[in-house]
Amino acid sequence: MESLSVALGSRSYPIHIGAGIIERAELYGPHVRGALAVVTNEVVAPLYLERVCRALQSAGGRVTPIVVEDGERAKSWQTLDRIFDQLLAARLGRDASIVALGGGVVGDLAGFAAAVYQRGVVLIQVPTTLLAQVDSSVGGKTAINHARGKNMIGAFHQPLAVISDVATLETLSDRELRAGLAEAIKHGVALDERFVGWLEQNIERILARDRAALIYTVRRCCELKAGVVADDEREAGVRALLNLGHTFGHAIEAGTGFGPWLHGEAVAAGMVMAAQLSARLGLLAAPDAHRIAALVARAGLPTQAPRLPRERWHELMAIDKKAAGGRVRFVLLEAIGRAKLQAGVDQRFVDEVIAAAAA
Amino acid sequence: MESLSVALGSRSYPIHIGAGIIERAELYGPHVRGALAVVTNEVVAPLYLERVCRALQSAGGRVTPIVVEDGERAKSWQTLDRIFDQLLAARLGRDASIVALGGGVVGDLAGFAAAVYQRGVVLIQVPTTLLAQVDSSVGGKTAINHARGKNMIGAFHQPLAVISDVATLETLSDRELRAGLAEAIKHGVALDERFVGWLEQNIERILARDRAALIYTVRRCCELKAGVVADDEREAGVRALLNLGHTFGHAIEAGTGFGPWLHGEAVAAGMVMAAQLSARLGLLAAPDAHRIAALVARAGLPTQAPRLPRERWHELMAIDKKAAGGRVRFVLLEAIGRAKLQAGVDQRFVDEVIAAAAA
Repeated sequence: MESLSVALGSRSYPIHIGAGIIERAELYGPHVRGALAVVTNEVVAPLYLERVCRALQSAGGRVTPIVVEDGERAKSWQTLDRIFDQLLAARLGRDASIVALGGGVVGDLAGFAAAVYQRGVVLIQVPTTLLAQVDSSVGGKTAINHARGKNMIGAFHQPLAVISDVATLETLSDRELRAGLAEAIKHGVALDERFVGWLEQNIERILARDRAALIYTVRRCCELKAGVVADDEREAGVRALLNLGHTFGHAIEAGTGFGPWLHGEAVAAGMVMAAQLSARLGLLAAPDAHRIAALVARAGLPTQAPRLPRERWHELMAIDKKAAGGRVRFVLLEAIGRAKLQAGVDQRFVDEVIAAAAA
Repeated sequence: MESLSVALGSRSYPIHIGAGIIERAELYGPHVRGALAVVTNEVVAPLYLERVCRALQSAGGRVTPIVVEDGERAKSWQTLDRIFDQLLAARLGRDASIVALGGGVVGDLAGFAAAVYQRGVVLIQVPTTLLAQVDSSVGGKTAINHARGKNMIGAFHQPLAVISDVATLETLSDRELRAGLAEAIKHGVALDERFVGWLEQNIERILARDRAALIYTVRRCCELKAGVVADDEREAGVRALLNLGHTFGHAIEAGTGFGPWLHGEAVAAGMVMAAQLSARLGLLAAPDAHRIAALVARAGLPTQAPRLPRERWHELMAIDKKAAGGRVRFVLLEAIGRAKLQAGVDQRFVDEVIAAAAA
């Protein structure tokens, strides 16, 4: 098992990465103070819920399991309210802890529940998808969706620990694995050219679920993300670079009604579009844009966006939460591994990229 | 105008107290960064909304007014969701500010909206009731209610400024004024015997809405509360003392279905019950318990609780959010001005107080 730390002063927390660690009571022990709820979904529950509950009980916790529906639709107020109802029925107080067992949706939803239940209780992230292990379980972003936009309602609420067991990735579908890989590629493309090189050499091992390759991928992504989060917890600056591909990506997800495209798939296509936009603006060398598209394609991820009317693109990107003062700020690339934030991008270039990407 | 500060390091903020200051653009100016929403209710809107909007516009803000229903019922997810809908429709981004213009309900609701809209935006509190000016607008507690309990869903989200205009108290009903006075009395009874003495001498001036008396009351309460919040922002210890009267009080509100009793009225009766419990436990001298009840009565506030079955009391107090690990912790009194937190109070004494208070 490997461990690293997210350095946030008195709120620093460990990330444990290994194979088969999900049932190790001693990892939960330091964070169990009394009653706990494990929030998971109907797909993950039959696979891992019992093992995690047993570990928490061994660590001395009274455990209430809460199972929600699968999929992005669970990131709704309705589902959240059912979680609150079960927490209150089980009389969990302010000293309770919530364990988020599952992928990005469960982490966002259970994380937001922990952020606002009785004005905030302890959160432990136990991510079981590659996307959640390389990205969403680290850094404290939690949210639910609103009819008018994704992740519009949420909070920054850091976990007390992240326990990433790559053995759980064995039950993941190929499609989900690839969607997670999209965020790993994104970390490299935004921040670390060497990691992109490593991914290019090891992508087949990752897709074959080689444990050592998965552990290295999760660790390197967590290192990169932990560094960014320590510098800019609330995304006032550098952290926004990790939104590479997300302005286009969120528009793809929203424009297709949240469902047909997985988040990682939308980010993959969005990242290719952001690279193309960077190239059209003369920021990024054209071969680098091609190199990114090639890696995305080798990961089995989409490099093209769906067809949507141009006005719909504009509308969806304008409401994106990164819109500051009415202007869309893009994360662009100066090189592979060197992302930058830019406002005031000429709409003409954006339109060209949209037209080309959906061709 | 008088100003004091809530000392929270880089998140410190000013409280401005005066008469007629609600329309002073220069008080809002330092906190206006771009678009703003003013959240208020249908009772306050005709009285003060236009004046506040004008001041914010003079300070350079683009203002979206949002008017919600009056009363505790507004602290619901449904109302919150309508606020989010209007914020999103007006394309307010992460750099927006929310101004809470109204009493405790509006402050809690708009404050929680600010805490979670796009993971948190700036909040400015403009309290227009005595309760909000002496208590709820200061300290960052925000919340909505859940069917199973009051204030169960919320966040700590400090404002960037509090602007308390005692001239707005002139439009308050006598009943609302008294309900606010209950929280002022509570601050004194919990923390400051001298302030209780001052209230005993000046209660008629307050009830007659003498501006100097109101300004002193608001200032002294804010000083007391600011000190407590600076020491214990998240209510891990000393801040819980300000919940004096709230364990019984919340049970009264919930047991009567949130409506017939104003929050301040329930706190008044709850504070008298807490004093009686302290006396029965031999902590507080009996004459001091009588002195508290006498002041509450002179303020025109209830000293008796409504009749509820004993089991209902137990149920309502057990789910109260101060319940930690399944045990109810009471705020008790060792003397007037000296509150203490105590767990493991013998249920027999609690039952005696309930029986006596509803007699």
